[in-house]
Amino acid sequence: MSDILILTEDQLRQRVKLDTAAIGVIETAFAALGRSGVVMPPVLSMQMPDVKGELDVKTAYVPGLAGFAVKLSPGFFDNPSKGLPSTSGLMVVLSSETGRVQAVLLDNGYLTDIRTAAAGGVAAKHLSRADSSRAAIFGAGLQARMQLQALCLVRPIREAVIWARDPDKAAALAAELDGDGLTVRAEADAARAAAFADIIVTTTPSHHPILQADWLRPGQHVTAMGSDQPDKNELDPYCLDRADLYVADRVSQTRLMGELHAALEAGLIVETGDIPELGDIIRGRHPGRTSPDQITIADLTGTGVQDTAIATHALAAFAKDATHA
Amino acid sequence: MSDILILTEDQLRQRVKLDTAAIGVIETAFAALGRSGVVMPPVLSMQMPDVKGELDVKTAYVPGLAGFAVKLSPGFFDNPSKGLPSTSGLMVVLSSETGRVQAVLLDNGYLTDIRTAAAGGVAAKHLSRADSSRAAIFGAGLQARMQLQALCLVRPIREAVIWARDPDKAAALAAELDGDGLTVRAEADAARAAAFADIIVTTTPSHHPILQADWLRPGQHVTAMGSDQPDKNELDPYCLDRADLYVADRVSQTRLMGELHAALEAGLIVETGDIPELGDIIRGRHPGRTSPDQITIADLTGTGVQDTAIATHALAAFAKDATHA
Repeated sequence: MSDILILTEDQLRQRVKLDTAAIGVIETAFAALGRSGVVMPPVLSMQMPDVKGELDVKTAYVPGLAGFAVKLSPGFFDNPSKGLPSTSGLMVVLSSETGRVQAVLLDNGYLTDIRTAAAGGVAAKHLSRADSSRAAIFGAGLQARMQLQALCLVRPIREAVIWARDPDKAAALAAELDGDGLTVRAEADAARAAAFADIIVTTTPSHHPILQADWLRPGQHVTAMGSDQPDKNELDPYCLDRADLYVADRVSQTRLMGELHAALEAGLIVETGDIPELGDIIRGRHPGRTSPDQITIADLTGTGVQDTAIATHALAAFAKDATHA
Repeated sequence: MSDILILTEDQLRQRVKLDTAAIGVIETAFAALGRSGVVMPPVLSMQMPDVKGELDVKTAYVPGLAGFAVKLSPGFFDNPSKGLPSTSGLMVVLSSETGRVQAVLLDNGYLTDIRTAAAGGVAAKHLSRADSSRAAIFGAGLQARMQLQALCLVRPIREAVIWARDPDKAAALAAELDGDGLTVRAEADAARAAAFADIIVTTTPSHHPILQADWLRPGQHVTAMGSDQPDKNELDPYCLDRADLYVADRVSQTRLMGELHAALEAGLIVETGDIPELGDIIRGRHPGRTSPDQITIADLTGTGVQDTAIATHALAAFAKDATHA
């Protein structure tokens, strides 16, 4: 490809969906992450306090893929007062052979939403009980909705509850998602929401734990996906102590900005050398859940291989279009 | 700007030149670098050894500028055998107010070439003797040519010599640059090239010193701009010992990947707390050269503020176009 392909958010929304194909692509990416040859540098993070802004840059190189993505994720927290979403950004895809720019995906964060939700699906597929039918979602934002959609793609979910700090938002989201074979309602009591579910997904930007360890019961799976900065924290650190199995998307990241970070700070975990990553479970290098009564936790902070995988997936969709045109 | 501006390399080449305006913009950027509020995270660097590739990502936020740039610089060293340049890349400009993408500059490294050469001009303007008329350029690549052009914009250069490992390339470049009031010739002996000049610029990707300390003489200024990785090294570490003044573009970077790195490794420098940065000289916080007989060295590794500055400069040129259209 000598010309650079520029794709807009609208084009990407039409072609790339949260579906089993996207979940498969992200599953493969996590499996690749543990293999030799994959390179994923630490996140470049820039804080701009005077404009309440931050920028994260993520990338990863996966041998065998035709390209690799570099993702720019800005978050500007005064944007809602200007009628704009806080987050936006784009992905640039470069050739793995020549480094030349192949495509610019002006997705405003849409592909990140997809790959983040898909990771929740992958975690549930590999860690939750196969018969999980009840979900509890903490939070009422975009990822609350998408994480529930992802669960429904991998587990026979029939009922879900939504808990959010703002009960009106929880009610509105529940009303929107209810129906089509799925019963969804808001639950004002966080402990009862947790007790209800086989799978709990926390999707908040909370700086203080919202899921308490003594709410957990045998057989549950928890995915915590809201924490992506060192000062964010959704799980009471004792949850990690209580769980039979804690799995990171990438230990080197969850040490710094995930739920593991809070547990390390609390001194509840000292040694991280044995912690499995999601890719280890997918590749069968770690058995994962070994009994229906275990409590499992997946700690997702978002990785550059997911970005490279979803960007490659998006480009493939458009290449197919071009062939059929 | 609600729409995203996409500019190609051709468009940028037509509008943005290595001229006194570009040098002024880079000078202002270095002055800003020392001020509070400027944020410049460490370079994100990814090595892809199996495809002989590397990627650097640089960025910087400068309060008061409307936007900030994120630059992707890939280097793929098998490219020349495929008829492609080793380096390419692009810059993305984001709004300092909202983080939204304002522009994608598909420059294939052209703006980096400009801002890198302009930094050489800024260093010579602030560190070399005002009457410098003779230049020696080490290397015969694109930056060899552009660094000489930048020197001519700030000093009354009349004669220049080119030394390169490949004498044919040195001769070809000298023949190309000779004329128009400037006498340029190749010099096969590196020591004689150095002895000839008031200003020496090293522009090579060398991993071993090419400029020896005992070649230096009083009154000279040296700009070393080829080293941008920890294993690159153009100056005999004793040059830093011999010089009266060593100036970094950014001490935190030259410690890791500049000539300072080699001098630290050799144990010739232990304490870096007092080292001035180019911005300190520009802002008058450090006197710089205080006598015509001093030997000065500028160590340039390339900074994110230069990228933000040149990208903003480029966008301003196109905004002016739009106004006049």
